[in-house]
Amino acid sequence: MTQRAGPYPASTNTRGAPYPRINPDGSIMLQLKAPGATCVQVQPGGVDNGLGSESYDMERDADGIWTATIPPGVPGFHYYWFLVDGLQVNDPGSETFFGYGRQTSGLELPEDPEVAAYYHPQDVPRGDVRIRWYWAKTTETWRRAYIYTPPGYDTDIEQRYPVLYLQHGGGEDERGWITQGHMNFILDNAIAKGRAAPMIVVMECNYAYEPGDSPPPPQAITRRSRPPRLAQTITRLIVHDLLPMVDGTFRTLSDHKHRAMAGLSMGSMVTLQTTLRNLDLFDYIGVFSGGFLGNDDDAGMLATAGLSPDDGPAFNEKVALLWFGVGSCEPRILAHTRSRVVEMDAAGIDYVYWETPDVSHEWLTWRRCLNEFIALLFQ
Amino acid sequence: MTQRAGPYPASTNTRGAPYPRINPDGSIMLQLKAPGATCVQVQPGGVDNGLGSESYDMERDADGIWTATIPPGVPGFHYYWFLVDGLQVNDPGSETFFGYGRQTSGLELPEDPEVAAYYHPQDVPRGDVRIRWYWAKTTETWRRAYIYTPPGYDTDIEQRYPVLYLQHGGGEDERGWITQGHMNFILDNAIAKGRAAPMIVVMECNYAYEPGDSPPPPQAITRRSRPPRLAQTITRLIVHDLLPMVDGTFRTLSDHKHRAMAGLSMGSMVTLQTTLRNLDLFDYIGVFSGGFLGNDDDAGMLATAGLSPDDGPAFNEKVALLWFGVGSCEPRILAHTRSRVVEMDAAGIDYVYWETPDVSHEWLTWRRCLNEFIALLFQ
Repeated sequence: MTQRAGPYPASTNTRGAPYPRINPDGSIMLQLKAPGATCVQVQPGGVDNGLGSESYDMERDADGIWTATIPPGVPGFHYYWFLVDGLQVNDPGSETFFGYGRQTSGLELPEDPEVAAYYHPQDVPRGDVRIRWYWAKTTETWRRAYIYTPPGYDTDIEQRYPVLYLQHGGGEDERGWITQGHMNFILDNAIAKGRAAPMIVVMECNYAYEPGDSPPPPQAITRRSRPPRLAQTITRLIVHDLLPMVDGTFRTLSDHKHRAMAGLSMGSMVTLQTTLRNLDLFDYIGVFSGGFLGNDDDAGMLATAGLSPDDGPAFNEKVALLWFGVGSCEPRILAHTRSRVVEMDAAGIDYVYWETPDVSHEWLTWRRCLNEFIALLFQ
Repeated sequence: MTQRAGPYPASTNTRGAPYPRINPDGSIMLQLKAPGATCVQVQPGGVDNGLGSESYDMERDADGIWTATIPPGVPGFHYYWFLVDGLQVNDPGSETFFGYGRQTSGLELPEDPEVAAYYHPQDVPRGDVRIRWYWAKTTETWRRAYIYTPPGYDTDIEQRYPVLYLQHGGGEDERGWITQGHMNFILDNAIAKGRAAPMIVVMECNYAYEPGDSPPPPQAITRRSRPPRLAQTITRLIVHDLLPMVDGTFRTLSDHKHRAMAGLSMGSMVTLQTTLRNLDLFDYIGVFSGGFLGNDDDAGMLATAGLSPDDGPAFNEKVALLWFGVGSCEPRILAHTRSRVVEMDAAGIDYVYWETPDVSHEWLTWRRCLNEFIALLFQ
């Protein structure tokens, strides 16, 4: 976790893979052996990627090994892949990370170790991340949840814990907050410092389909193409299947005062759609790089919550914390969040707005958001 | 988990991905859009792959979509990938599975649902699979263990449990027994039927390097190229770091009568190297598709255990179960296991030899081995 003089392999590489390699000046060297290819590029994933928004050409040597050295990027996790004669190909030297509806390569760029300590393992008591399958009646399928139980859960056996439901973004899944987000290290470290209350964190998948419905092809699963029925289904699944499974399986505090939900990007839409319609179930709401309400965007938050335009005080009565976090370098989301702020000011809704510098629509923003948000929960 | 009339997407596909698709006659249709390619093939992983050992040519249509329909394969899990102008490329429609030292595509072919029920989720009490990071002094690194805790672990809080250490194969890692092996479903179902004792199962990575040593590139990490020092390091890590972490963290029965180790292929070598040198720590030994001792192959089992050639009875005194399982269609391993059987007969070592039909050096063999082996433990 300490920064080395370099060059050294990225921490997201598979064991022993020498590339991607980070140079002392922060530039990154990537390599792929593809003797049969005529054009190979490095493509950062997404529009606001901290590696850059354009593809980088790679150069071929006599053995058919293609190489590129790309400029230093923003610290944190970035999706990327190769384009081999136009075909999207993973880097065999990288672990895979579920994003964009498929398994892709990913690259962790180091941050100042002191600043980054909160999302790396430290010598503190550690919780477990548990993988648990359960049968959901809403979808009539087996589903998989990742559930963080805090340090002491196995030994303080009389203790019950509040619960944070934590939602991934579009094209990702229930693994994202662990593998891309490092949420377990963030929780372990914050709990050890007394910054956050010991809590259970539940991560499930934001995609849910009625029995008989087929999921759309992966590339169609984005926030914008999301059919309204899909949103209704996931909220019903959370309320009628996931909450009862969690409260029936783990030692939770199962009242609304001890239940929070937060999500990033599309997951923040699931969060708002679910919490606003169920304010009797959730007291804490976290919106990371989002604030979209889906089809109810124009109706606004009070209407979505079934309240009238002058019911701001009633809303505040029901919600202990409504928290918006956003990166300073994600213009589209910033603009949207600020318009939500204008709406909330007009409606007399209490909220917290938190902007974090130099980061975009990426996982470093969401690690920071989580670290900030958990300190405000269950006080 | 029921077999459908088809065609239907494989269960190993990502959500919504239509290909690979299984046809009613069991043949499998694969597809890749690669307009810029001149030759695309489907390549099954490994030499004894139940999809076949040769690559299959794919045919291009006018839009650059390549398709192949390949013959029905052996049920269970198979590694595969595409060869695009010679470059190994994952199927974007498939989940990824760590094998061959990298993330690859995988294809689960359905078995008769009644026969396959033991490795699929059923309506029975379920254990958790926990992901736990810990600091290992042997390697001076953070390492990750996957740990199955049985149903009731959280509620029967006075209960302590025996432990099975379960090792993956060459090129795989600590995730293999979960994602490829379905070990949690196998344990849940066997425990529910009373076939197996409730137990904790620990899965860690068989690769460990001394501080300062660099791991070899992934393609070099196989059984045959494994340096002897690597084997010593993993045994030391298991004994001095992993066992104390597990016994210190979970409610184990920590004596040798309640500790087993088993592994598949290269993992069976780690199992024999570790258990034979530490018979005071392990009473149960499982060898799935293996039986290699590494550099001690010629010396034999008694010598590896520090015993003399007439010490068979002393060995039997120390070992409650020595179990060898092998698939009938893996000739190299069959031959090796049978030579080990000859050695054990000559040395007066007690053992169980179990051969399972129609399967090769693949995960269906190891699911069956695990299901059989756990029924014999901790009696």
